[in-house]
Amino acid sequence: MRLWNFSAGPATIPLAVLEQVRAELPDWHGVGCGVMEMSHRGKIYTGIYEKIVADLRQLMDIPEDYAILFLQGGATLQFSQIPMNLLDGGSADYLTTGAWSEKAVKAGQRLYGDSIREAGTSADASFTRLVDPASMRLNPKAKYLHFCSNETIGGVEVFDLKQLGGAVQAGVPLIADMSSNILSRPINVRDYGMVYAGAQKNIGPAGVTLVIIRKDLLGKATTAIPALLDYAEEEKNTSMLNTPPTFAIYMAGLVFEWLLKQGGLPAIAQQNQAKAELLYKTIDGSGGFYANPVALDCRSWMNVPFTLKDKALDPIFLEESEKAGLLALKGHKLVGGMRASIYNAMPLAGVQALVGFMNDFMHRYG
Amino acid sequence: MRLWNFSAGPATIPLAVLEQVRAELPDWHGVGCGVMEMSHRGKIYTGIYEKIVADLRQLMDIPEDYAILFLQGGATLQFSQIPMNLLDGGSADYLTTGAWSEKAVKAGQRLYGDSIREAGTSADASFTRLVDPASMRLNPKAKYLHFCSNETIGGVEVFDLKQLGGAVQAGVPLIADMSSNILSRPINVRDYGMVYAGAQKNIGPAGVTLVIIRKDLLGKATTAIPALLDYAEEEKNTSMLNTPPTFAIYMAGLVFEWLLKQGGLPAIAQQNQAKAELLYKTIDGSGGFYANPVALDCRSWMNVPFTLKDKALDPIFLEESEKAGLLALKGHKLVGGMRASIYNAMPLAGVQALVGFMNDFMHRYG
Repeated sequence: MRLWNFSAGPATIPLAVLEQVRAELPDWHGVGCGVMEMSHRGKIYTGIYEKIVADLRQLMDIPEDYAILFLQGGATLQFSQIPMNLLDGGSADYLTTGAWSEKAVKAGQRLYGDSIREAGTSADASFTRLVDPASMRLNPKAKYLHFCSNETIGGVEVFDLKQLGGAVQAGVPLIADMSSNILSRPINVRDYGMVYAGAQKNIGPAGVTLVIIRKDLLGKATTAIPALLDYAEEEKNTSMLNTPPTFAIYMAGLVFEWLLKQGGLPAIAQQNQAKAELLYKTIDGSGGFYANPVALDCRSWMNVPFTLKDKALDPIFLEESEKAGLLALKGHKLVGGMRASIYNAMPLAGVQALVGFMNDFMHRYG
Repeated sequence: MRLWNFSAGPATIPLAVLEQVRAELPDWHGVGCGVMEMSHRGKIYTGIYEKIVADLRQLMDIPEDYAILFLQGGATLQFSQIPMNLLDGGSADYLTTGAWSEKAVKAGQRLYGDSIREAGTSADASFTRLVDPASMRLNPKAKYLHFCSNETIGGVEVFDLKQLGGAVQAGVPLIADMSSNILSRPINVRDYGMVYAGAQKNIGPAGVTLVIIRKDLLGKATTAIPALLDYAEEEKNTSMLNTPPTFAIYMAGLVFEWLLKQGGLPAIAQQNQAKAELLYKTIDGSGGFYANPVALDCRSWMNVPFTLKDKALDPIFLEESEKAGLLALKGHKLVGGMRASIYNAMPLAGVQALVGFMNDFMHRYG
């Protein structure tokens, strides 16, 4: 029996998608084998792949002057690949709003030292808000500005680029790590030089990384990096410089189809907002029994960390919630307490079940 | 209906494994979600992963002083990662026996120029045999010697390290790209410094790369490479520096279990030999109607390229074989003609069906 799964990632997949995978696994559309068993260069897979790219272009309204790449190594490898491809002898600005954007800075500095500049941080607020624009030290000649649009651990989300203040500069491409909020609501891709995301939250199974990059940013890397890590080489080779993770990409495609059937990103955004509001309302209305530390303007719709007033109740909450069929609510060790990840595939009914449990728990222990 | 699938990779998966995946997809062992939907750091997945590593150690008799890593980027990324990790300011020798070992040389030279030495090649024989040991120019101080144990395109396989002649030198670690023949028969891991393989032939779905490396070779890389590409960092972090491709790894584990049930590598080797012998016997006994150009001592058990005497029959052979339920027999464009990939998951019955078709086709068109 499937339970409500609040895992931060790898995360719950829509049941309809899993059922389709089960049906198609040994024999895709009567061709005699499954998608994972066919050549990535054959006509059948190529056709599947082209539809996946077209569906994603439609879903996110991605202009033709942006390349869509399906790579490997997760956001973590992107933290290195981005400066390898785009630093181009210059320097880049980074905003730090939590554990993930901090990792991006460290991975970049490992390779390029001071050329990776922390242009602003909310570390002074324990990453419970976005960077105060007044505190930013921006370089107008930066090769790019990097930020994380949703911090999976801290639960801090950027909803509007205006929240970045002066960091949005003409001529400085914005690069966003959208691993945990991609496809959760419409964005204007044209505002970005590049967005990227590991798949294992809102796209599909772990093992594929989506990169959407404006084509004029391609081709700045030198041969000092492996060809496989060069976006321009991958674009030229349709992300097939090596055998791609075909099954994970196929599943991403099924998720894209599922999203289109739901009404696309505007429809899923409404659901996501309703789910998040219900959960935050429960936390804020608990008279302090539950608490979420994040500033109101940047509370994530996807990852909702919360603590109990009495920490001694944490293990009891986790044990009882699991018995109630609510999985993976333990918070990340960096922030402690609980975390409910409520990605696209989590229906409102799951959040209602969680909220029901939370209210019941509060009445029994509050 | 499943047909006989001779794809070179991604390749056919044992049906028993696919059926188990189907059964476990939405709910693994009653835990309430599938393997692809759970945290890679949680107890359940960690337990699954530990069993996978233990099963592989048993299957291949891997000593404890060898690390087992599950990485991403395929053999192609390994072509760069190997010198990044092991060149250590020196130079390395490479043997070239076909398209894949040639790619390894080129990827290495892209980063390290002449430090990547082609110590021998069989290009003069159009890659239809191994390198003549008499022609090798070996460096006794090489940091490693790289070769490909099975050329997927040319169908050239190394069965005994003695075939490498003087290239096996005390103090020079052997590194073998085993992408297309790993797990096909027993090998002595202790003979190697490192073996590696993309999964999509004999291990599981595309998207995971197996690296088995002697631990004393770890830790020679500098911070000039991304941490994710440093074997030592991956070993320290149980291949979890980023979210690993958990579903592909889980499927690899099911394949390992399936192999153990078959009787392990000695048993599968017998089957593989019988399959290959049947196919080569058919080719050689066709009075020249079919031909395989590879020298007798290195004809691959896994990938059997063959040509028709009359090239004009190629498209007819491919069309009719597909109608007969024999998939993906088209040869690689580099060698032309046909290719039957008969990995572990292809039963003898599949090769019997192929041979039956080949004999029938010859009688009709010969």
